[in-house]
Amino acid sequence: MDIVADNLTITNAIVADAVQRLDPTPIQNIVRRCEKAGAGMIDINSGPLTRKPEKLMTFLVDSVRKASNLPLLLDSSNAVALEAGLRVCLGKAIINGFSLEPDKLALILPLARKFETRIIGYLLYPDSNVPADGAERLTVALELYSRFSEAGLAPEQLIIDPVIPPLLWQNGHTQAMEVVNVIRTLPDLLGFKVQTIAGISNLTTGPGNQAQKPVFEQVYTAMLAEAGLTMALVNVFHTGTMAAIRACNTLISTKVFSWL
Amino acid sequence: MDIVADNLTITNAIVADAVQRLDPTPIQNIVRRCEKAGAGMIDINSGPLTRKPEKLMTFLVDSVRKASNLPLLLDSSNAVALEAGLRVCLGKAIINGFSLEPDKLALILPLARKFETRIIGYLLYPDSNVPADGAERLTVALELYSRFSEAGLAPEQLIIDPVIPPLLWQNGHTQAMEVVNVIRTLPDLLGFKVQTIAGISNLTTGPGNQAQKPVFEQVYTAMLAEAGLTMALVNVFHTGTMAAIRACNTLISTKVFSWL
Repeated sequence: MDIVADNLTITNAIVADAVQRLDPTPIQNIVRRCEKAGAGMIDINSGPLTRKPEKLMTFLVDSVRKASNLPLLLDSSNAVALEAGLRVCLGKAIINGFSLEPDKLALILPLARKFETRIIGYLLYPDSNVPADGAERLTVALELYSRFSEAGLAPEQLIIDPVIPPLLWQNGHTQAMEVVNVIRTLPDLLGFKVQTIAGISNLTTGPGNQAQKPVFEQVYTAMLAEAGLTMALVNVFHTGTMAAIRACNTLISTKVFSWL
Repeated sequence: MDIVADNLTITNAIVADAVQRLDPTPIQNIVRRCEKAGAGMIDINSGPLTRKPEKLMTFLVDSVRKASNLPLLLDSSNAVALEAGLRVCLGKAIINGFSLEPDKLALILPLARKFETRIIGYLLYPDSNVPADGAERLTVALELYSRFSEAGLAPEQLIIDPVIPPLLWQNGHTQAMEVVNVIRTLPDLLGFKVQTIAGISNLTTGPGNQAQKPVFEQVYTAMLAEAGLTMALVNVFHTGTMAAIRACNTLISTKVFSWL
């Protein structure tokens, strides 16, 4: 299970301020801390970047690349920003991402073909609503893969995000368990070794029992790991979750393990 | 997932000494601490009790019952001790347990019929060797269930223990992951809602990286919970593991959950 840092996000006031001032230093400090904490990839969550999308995404990608050689995910709903970011890193980034939403099918999905890169597909309805249960998620996955294939993309370019529900939703925990099963089921459903990603922080987002959040995040991550999750998008500064992921990776590894 | 304390065991010198002196106090102190820590059941691991099995098991069960009303598991390879223990608690205990070993089929399995109680069946070969992989475990499960049925017992009386391998074994982690899958597969294999138990402490037993043991225990327990494990036999004084189990039980519960 690859570890993708979710820490570099425009929703962090430090990042937002650095982007506004075009100051790479705070961004690079976060990236270096992420790498030190064990991140294997960095998700650059720029938000929609409604103003100056090309300039700001270029600045973000440039800033990060000067601080780290880690692979990147470009996370935006703005196709113009995504394309600018992909240009800067010569297509060497994962696009995050598309869904059945018409704008994303029309504008973002083709970027994966153009830059021959991987792209994350969210299991969401065309109106961006979250499917109500596991069966609905699998139905959406079939439709998503169909649209993905029609766009001329190869199976190995697809990474599916089943969308982890927050526990504060009614029946959020039930849906969370169905997501585990969706991850386990996708390879059989689609007939190939489907790559998957999940935003772990989403489980415990919002209000809730602060003391219990870490343990919920840790046990849920273990369940996802056992189900075959390929990439965990996490707050890499959550040391307990990082320790849990490392232990999971040891358990699921096919290599010989010795802790003696 | 029910929590069974593995703490009351003759391998603990305090317990061994108390049994030898027929002093119930140290035993009762452990039992009260287990209950306070969140145990839902107590496993009385008396060992083989080669000398005075009836007297000593009777003493153990009596001592525990005077300190706690928690359901009991009687854990011994000695059928005479088990029968004495079952008499004291009027058959209200789970027998732990039998396997394909000829002596256990002949002497211990019939006790479940006689006392109309549940019994744990270990997935072990007749020579008490551990099956090499998941497929072998499932083959043993079929044979075990066949012998169990021939003894006139009902499916709901069976609790299967797939035998968690220690990580220090060569490929122990691979076998541990196969055990998760065995637990998930058993209901389909046997055609009913098979109850299962697993001795979690076994995973990290022996030498090894002490600092890493808790996290391995926690993530592995989460994987077992997701796979449908019915009963977790654990050291209830491992607070991290207990917190993990509580979080898992919330996630897998079909009840409405709110932490607000």
